[in-house]
Amino acid sequence: MVTKNQVKYIQSLSHKKQRDEDGVFIAEGPKIVRELMQLDQVKPREVYGTLDWWESQPTSWRQQPWAVEVNEEELQRLSFLTTPNQVVAIFNKPVIHPHPGGWQIMLDGIQDPGNLGTIIRIADWFGIQQVVCSPDSADAYNPKVVQSSMASIGRVEVDYTDLVQYVVDHAHRVFYAATLDGQPIKEVKASRPGVLVIGNESKGIRPELMQKLSHFITIPRQGEAESLNAAVATGIILSHLIT
Amino acid sequence: MVTKNQVKYIQSLSHKKQRDEDGVFIAEGPKIVRELMQLDQVKPREVYGTLDWWESQPTSWRQQPWAVEVNEEELQRLSFLTTPNQVVAIFNKPVIHPHPGGWQIMLDGIQDPGNLGTIIRIADWFGIQQVVCSPDSADAYNPKVVQSSMASIGRVEVDYTDLVQYVVDHAHRVFYAATLDGQPIKEVKASRPGVLVIGNESKGIRPELMQKLSHFITIPRQGEAESLNAAVATGIILSHLIT
Repeated sequence: MVTKNQVKYIQSLSHKKQRDEDGVFIAEGPKIVRELMQLDQVKPREVYGTLDWWESQPTSWRQQPWAVEVNEEELQRLSFLTTPNQVVAIFNKPVIHPHPGGWQIMLDGIQDPGNLGTIIRIADWFGIQQVVCSPDSADAYNPKVVQSSMASIGRVEVDYTDLVQYVVDHAHRVFYAATLDGQPIKEVKASRPGVLVIGNESKGIRPELMQKLSHFITIPRQGEAESLNAAVATGIILSHLIT
Repeated sequence: MVTKNQVKYIQSLSHKKQRDEDGVFIAEGPKIVRELMQLDQVKPREVYGTLDWWESQPTSWRQQPWAVEVNEEELQRLSFLTTPNQVVAIFNKPVIHPHPGGWQIMLDGIQDPGNLGTIIRIADWFGIQQVVCSPDSADAYNPKVVQSSMASIGRVEVDYTDLVQYVVDHAHRVFYAATLDGQPIKEVKASRPGVLVIGNESKGIRPELMQKLSHFITIPRQGEAESLNAAVATGIILSHLIT
């Protein structure tokens, strides 16, 4: 059974302000919820599942205070998806302790939630535990970002900070800026982990940040497309830098 | 001025059947429409632009029989986007003559229109002019695919055919299947152009097709993510195969 207040509360979590105040995020669907439940880094706060879903989960889960059984109509009211899928869950934001000195991704104004989620998933694939974003980037705990991260949101730390200051404060690291006229990816040898800098989908890296950077890296173009999708570019460059 | 019938007609183009019958597709927004207009491979059928938009285009365009000026309210009625952007255009499907013997991408059941559009854009970046899809893949002329292709839809031929039969008929070519347990990308040397085979987002390449393939290629994983997005994987593998 779901109360009006529970529905109202979940809806309020579409707003970043509410998510930040409560330190929570929402995930939906059996695959991603199941995977997040099994991580130490996140803890469930409320889990609304259909009878079907609960029956396929460990029985101990159903006795937890955060477990709620809902019918299809209730699930519909709780869900942010056009086609709700068995379960909607509220989790505490992950607590992650990245290895010091590992690779990082820096995002300057990534706007599209799908791109951000995909980049978090790419980070997780390559074993990168930290993504540093400019304050005007999409929020990592936006439900669309969470869904496209495919549970990687539970394993990657995403921070928001002034990027120019960050570069100044981490002058001992090598920052590789993805641009259209840098050194071809195949020629770049990263002898130790650095930071890959990816710019906004249409404007690229902003001039104030570019001024602080000195390593530029490019995916050579053989055809006509003006640019590559930001997440695709991130994946391609990392696959060459990280061996 | 826009008539009721024009609105009805554009709406009917959300259906593949109507697009196929008329051999047309829709593109929206100043950037992609302008770029498509400049290609020889596509011809405009009807272009609905606001006064602002027309004033920033070559004056000769406005005298063409396909040019229609609309106000914001009319644009809203014609558009498939939540936020319409200056222009909605109907184009004839492109006529492309790919170089024989060039690289190709084969897609087995790609469902997500954003992924398909992004893959078409990747193909275009790497100079690949042909994408071959299974009949159950998303339609390349779906408005969402067109938008995420960023005008690359006008430079890449997308065909739909039985993939098993295609592999049999092109036995002289090398097909590289993207899987989770193949040869690491850095070890694969493609001495001549081949065909990169990418499977469905969750199920991968279907068994009937896998049976016909013999070169398997993998992006080594350093972290925890279960998989990579299909478009990201396509970009990474191509960046290693094509030099």
